Amino acid sequence: MKDLSNKSEDKHTPPVGGDGGLHYHDYLQLDKILNSQFPESDKHGLSAHDEMLFIVIHQAYELWFKQLHHETDSILKIMSKPALNDNSPELQTVVHRLNRVVTILRVLVHQIDIMETMTPMDFLDFRDMLRPASGFQSWQFKELEAKLGLKFQHRHGKEYYTSQLRQEHIDVVKKAELDKSLLELLNNWLERMPFFNEEDNWKTFSVHTRMEHVPSFWAEYRYQYQNSLADVEKDNIDAFDEIFIKDYPINQEKSLSSIASRAALFIMLYRGYPMLQLPFQLLNALLEIDEQLSSWRYRHMNMVHRMIGTRIGTGGSSGKDYLKAAADKHYIFREIAQLNSFLIERRKLPFLPPEVEKRLGFVAA
Amino acid sequence: MKDLSNKSEDKHTPPVGGDGGLHYHDYLQLDKILNSQFPESDKHGLSAHDEMLFIVIHQAYELWFKQLHHETDSILKIMSKPALNDNSPELQTVVHRLNRVVTILRVLVHQIDIMETMTPMDFLDFRDMLRPASGFQSWQFKELEAKLGLKFQHRHGKEYYTSQLRQEHIDVVKKAELDKSLLELLNNWLERMPFFNEEDNWKTFSVHTRMEHVPSFWAEYRYQYQNSLADVEKDNIDAFDEIFIKDYPINQEKSLSSIASRAALFIMLYRGYPMLQLPFQLLNALLEIDEQLSSWRYRHMNMVHRMIGTRIGTGGSSGKDYLKAAADKHYIFREIAQLNSFLIERRKLPFLPPEVEKRLGFVAA
Amino acid sequence: MKDLSNKSEDKHTPPVGGDGGLHYHDYLQLDKILNSQFPESDKHGLSAHDEMLFIVIHQAYELWFKQLHHETDSILKIMSKPALNDNSPELQTVVHRLNRVVTILRVLVHQIDIMETMTPMDFLDFRDMLRPASGFQSWQFKELEAKLGLKFQHRHGKEYYTSQLRQEHIDVVKKAELDKSLLELLNNWLERMPFFNEEDNWKTFSVHTRMEHVPSFWAEYRYQYQNSLADVEKDNIDAFDEIFIKDYPINQEKSLSSIASRAALFIMLYRGYPMLQLPFQLLNALLEIDEQLSSWRYRHMNMVHRMIGTRIGTGGSSGKDYLKAAADKHYIFREIAQLNSFLIERRKLPFLPPEVEKRLGFVAA
Amino acid sequence: MKDLSNKSEDKHTPPVGGDGGLHYHDYLQLDKILNSQFPESDKHGLSAHDEMLFIVIHQAYELWFKQLHHETDSILKIMSKPALNDNSPELQTVVHRLNRVVTILRVLVHQIDIMETMTPMDFLDFRDMLRPASGFQSWQFKELEAKLGLKFQHRHGKEYYTSQLRQEHIDVVKKAELDKSLLELLNNWLERMPFFNEEDNWKTFSVHTRMEHVPSFWAEYRYQYQNSLADVEKDNIDAFDEIFIKDYPINQEKSLSSIASRAALFIMLYRGYPMLQLPFQLLNALLEIDEQLSSWRYRHMNMVHRMIGTRIGTGGSSGKDYLKAAADKHYIFREIAQLNSFLIERRKLPFLPPEVEKRLGFVAA
Repeated sequence: MKDLSNKSEDKHTPPVGGDGGLHYHDYLQLDKILNSQFPESDKHGLSAHDEMLFIVIHQAYELWFKQLHHETDSILKIMSKPALNDNSPELQTVVHRLNRVVTILRVLVHQIDIMETMTPMDFLDFRDMLRPASGFQSWQFKELEAKLGLKFQHRHGKEYYTSQLRQEHIDVVKKAELDKSLLELLNNWLERMPFFNEEDNWKTFSVHTRMEHVPSFWAEYRYQYQNSLADVEKDNIDAFDEIFIKDYPINQEKSLSSIASRAALFIMLYRGYPMLQLPFQLLNALLEIDEQLSSWRYRHMNMVHRMIGTRIGTGGSSGKDYLKAAADKHYIFREIAQLNSFLIERRKLPFLPPEVEKRLGFVAA
Repeated sequence: MKDLSNKSEDKHTPPVGGDGGLHYHDYLQLDKILNSQFPESDKHGLSAHDEMLFIVIHQAYELWFKQLHHETDSILKIMSKPALNDNSPELQTVVHRLNRVVTILRVLVHQIDIMETMTPMDFLDFRDMLRPASGFQSWQFKELEAKLGLKFQHRHGKEYYTSQLRQEHIDVVKKAELDKSLLELLNNWLERMPFFNEEDNWKTFSVHTRMEHVPSFWAEYRYQYQNSLADVEKDNIDAFDEIFIKDYPINQEKSLSSIASRAALFIMLYRGYPMLQLPFQLLNALLEIDEQLSSWRYRHMNMVHRMIGTRIGTGGSSGKDYLKAAADKHYIFREIAQLNSFLIERRKLPFLPPEVEKRLGFVAA
Repeated sequence: MKDLSNKSEDKHTPPVGGDGGLHYHDYLQLDKILNSQFPESDKHGLSAHDEMLFIVIHQAYELWFKQLHHETDSILKIMSKPALNDNSPELQTVVHRLNRVVTILRVLVHQIDIMETMTPMDFLDFRDMLRPASGFQSWQFKELEAKLGLKFQHRHGKEYYTSQLRQEHIDVVKKAELDKSLLELLNNWLERMPFFNEEDNWKTFSVHTRMEHVPSFWAEYRYQYQNSLADVEKDNIDAFDEIFIKDYPINQEKSLSSIASRAALFIMLYRGYPMLQLPFQLLNALLEIDEQLSSWRYRHMNMVHRMIGTRIGTGGSSGKDYLKAAADKHYIFREIAQLNSFLIERRKLPFLPPEVEKRLGFVAA
Repeated sequence: MKDLSNKSEDKHTPPVGGDGGLHYHDYLQLDKILNSQFPESDKHGLSAHDEMLFIVIHQAYELWFKQLHHETDSILKIMSKPALNDNSPELQTVVHRLNRVVTILRVLVHQIDIMETMTPMDFLDFRDMLRPASGFQSWQFKELEAKLGLKFQHRHGKEYYTSQLRQEHIDVVKKAELDKSLLELLNNWLERMPFFNEEDNWKTFSVHTRMEHVPSFWAEYRYQYQNSLADVEKDNIDAFDEIFIKDYPINQEKSLSSIASRAALFIMLYRGYPMLQLPFQLLNALLEIDEQLSSWRYRHMNMVHRMIGTRIGTGGSSGKDYLKAAADKHYIFREIAQLNSFLIERRKLPFLPPEVEKRLGFVAA
């Protein structure tokens, strides 16, 4: 393909079309996008056909990572507000954009099919020329994990990224680790759920048991949950207490406080009520994100294994082991996922008092 | 996201990492790739969140179009040789890369899911600012259609691209239209199939009928085909004669000569023989390409319809009508697809003489 | 595979496991499911390997059609209530199940990939033995189309199903055509949207224009819409009047009354408000259903074309033509899809009066 | 849905249509297929809407398992022949059907999307009623694993299936374990590859080294491989010797002999030659099968986890743990997958002598 670029083009000032209005080619900055592929094998005079694919697919991934940041940043901004207005479209916007993140991740998983059309021997044709460059150096991806809520201490191979990335990119990731993550903002948002401590709402609530310092609803729910356990599941009540009953401040290893965990479980249990529908969709989208990220790591791992076997990757380590460990450890919303262990049958759910029901619904005509 | 670019970076000379070897960030030219998104709505001070998606998805499409050109160019180069060596890996390379084209097209179809997360009202937020830029101006896509074999005269809205594209891009597409397309090279390759006119091969071939100027095999096959037709299908024999029997030179409207059509049908019929396996996979890959291109146009059309309804697109015309007409007309390998109307049951297939069988197989030990 | 059935098994009374409780094999009635494949080619002593695939894939389709009926029936039942309680989970259940229908349809589209592994010649091996059986005879699919809202008079080849199906199955489809379809129930539900004629709500609504017999909101919206039209779009205002302004009773060709169309457009425009979120998701799910059905017909059509070309199908007609006509005509929720032609930019949307806003939101604490 | 069955229907004798020829409804045995759904929750008078989905999806899986057996049986039959004729379509048929198996498995993975539309609470509505029935009891799946090559001793939870399945189904799985599996037949077929020990073929082969009892080609390849290893990879040569050099009989833990492993590696290295193209596609299809089975187990595991968390499954054990262990252990063609650790760069591949090249190609004209 010929070089069709405008020679005088400047990266940060997109040219104005001289031909009367915006042009697709300029709008999309195609001179830059399409002139950013420089195979190393060409430079070595050992042109390897498949290196172009290797470059283009990684560039496509990075483009989409940029878009994922664009969506995530906008979500973080809304979630950072001291109070989300339930009667505004804000929450819907959050859910819509999280679902878009899921849709993008699905395509990124599918894109691995394309990489798999490169055979191990085609890769060997240029692998050695890329050293020590490596996909581990995708700072955008690490920054994204951090924004979503992956803590440095939970990261597999944490020394690794500090040794592999440039200082400017380490700084970017570090900054994201210091800022409030989506997981932290989620915790705060969940903690703001009212109802449970508003004594007046629960006067008519029928209970089998009470617990000191525990809101009526949760003492009762604990009772119902305990009764629903099969013999071999009896120990689950300890996990229940650990997660929902024990006092703030939260366990160092936990990201969600017991108050936030309660709110999340309540959303799952009573999502049929209008006011809990979007919150439920939000929790669900987070689980989908984890699932797609996990699928991506998993298929990526299999692909790397198929490509290099037990040989070492361009970055100098066994790609597969890193990816496997990351796939097992990097579940960001794990604590949300685990709440499903604490559901009970719908027909045993406590009936909510009318005062609470009213708060969960629309204004009557 | 901060601008992380090296200020001194020059587009055509990728920097050598000062930190001891190739770096992922430089190798992929991420400074350019990730700094090529300039929403028009930002410039107008009416920032529209979804315009970033609009830019990124089109850039991702164009990146992949570049890759499709890379694969197609390499295929054209091999197919342009006066004779493909059946005992070399060349044909396998062609098939492998055509299948890669199919895999990429599948992802491009899937990618429409992402665009569909943009609602019509989100699009209205910046649609008017893009005029007259439009996806019709993707010269890479038009160039690709031309390389595969779409003729200017078969193109829907042909005046259209000459009026919409810049002269330099029109020239690119025109050049591709003048060069030998994949479809033309396919015709030439098919015409080189030997066997039918080598009289010695067919001495022992058992026939029910003969036709002047028609090789024995084809006279016999025509007889078997005619007998296989149900009453309501009887007219198919005229189509058969039109395609396989009538003399060279070919119909102006046809891309495959009768000789090439015969070779393609023979490949379909006897693909069980070793020598015809790759040729069959080649034909099949071409049909898959058409099918994916068609799915892409079809889903694209539905998406545009869902986005703008009967409103006009940014390019000034009804996007849906163009896409529908293109989806119906732009089948490039239609004549290959139509050959399946002329198959007969496997148990009625003529037995090939041993001389021909031998030519289709491996060297005995 | 050996016949593992219990000889005494009776179809309508699933056996109770003699081995202490429910068994997977009995629960799923696998004796019946796995012993329902009888290839015709076996009976003719001309065993064709691929006929088993042909049987199994059609059985899988019919199983899923049964599930689609199960979901659709439950949706129709809820939508038939004289009033859906906005504060109950009913609407959420409808949306959830419609989305499940979409998910199932996606898999059914994907399943065509499996059918495409059957080559035309493999199909010819048993095609003639199936006559006149044909996929047109899937009464479950026709019944489903009818339940969703496809009218007999809009059906392509309507005489066709009456001639092909058995009387008992025709009766099933006819009954579905007579019952209230999802489209009709949707119209009724939309017509029940309050607000527009409740004069008190609109006292503070600021307008540029008024129209007799037309609620203030819609006169104003018409004004804004007309102003948003580009010159070449000016005629759209006639379509607007046809759809939203003209009086009840509705056009014979239309399924949605002007009152219902207004409600649907209002939902699209103001879906950010809590009360309109589920209604918006409902409309969206219906469009997805149409899109998946359309994709299914389209891929099915291409597959049939690839399989039989211009030969006739087992049912005695050209499968492709029927499927193409059906794909073009059988959009059931077309009138919902067309509403996007009548949107305007978000920043030009009329501000709703506080009285209306309040009705669209949650009870304040 | 009404019961539309013919009352007199007998399971093993499909009825002949009284209305003049085969009918779709009878051909597909829809009376049986569509009347095999009996929700337990209905019997308990606690009708749970989603149990129908649970039944139908498992029946769809079992239908497809039957088809997978149909394909696998036909493949085993061909592979069992003492010698596959390279000049016959047999090998192509094997590859074609293995690829069909892959296509089916892909749809089965996708089908999990449908199951995921069932929420944990919807499942709780009927979970307890199914005990102790469980998906572990799918004898068809276990039989399939055995036919492909999963040995009883490699099976995770091996005591488990003997305790869960009925004796008649255990017998079915046991028989499959005793018969020659696809993996064993693959080993035998690979061992029959000629060339290496035919001294005359290698007279002109240029070598850097020789090894006693090792064919020239493999001594030379070992030399090239050793030289290609980076420092940290040096130990790979021990694995190389273990797999390719050590004598027959094979390691008890290995499924492929060193002779078979060599043949498989040779196919991968020289797949460009016509005669090795189908063998390469065969190996590739086996890896795809493992990958899809692995994806299926992995997504299944995630789905189960999302559904029941740490609660126990209907079969009385933690579904997730079993599935995770199975996903990690049940790679059937692992030894093929690992061969990619022993590839070298294409430009360092030994040149084959003309005598060998000739054997790998077609008869010259």
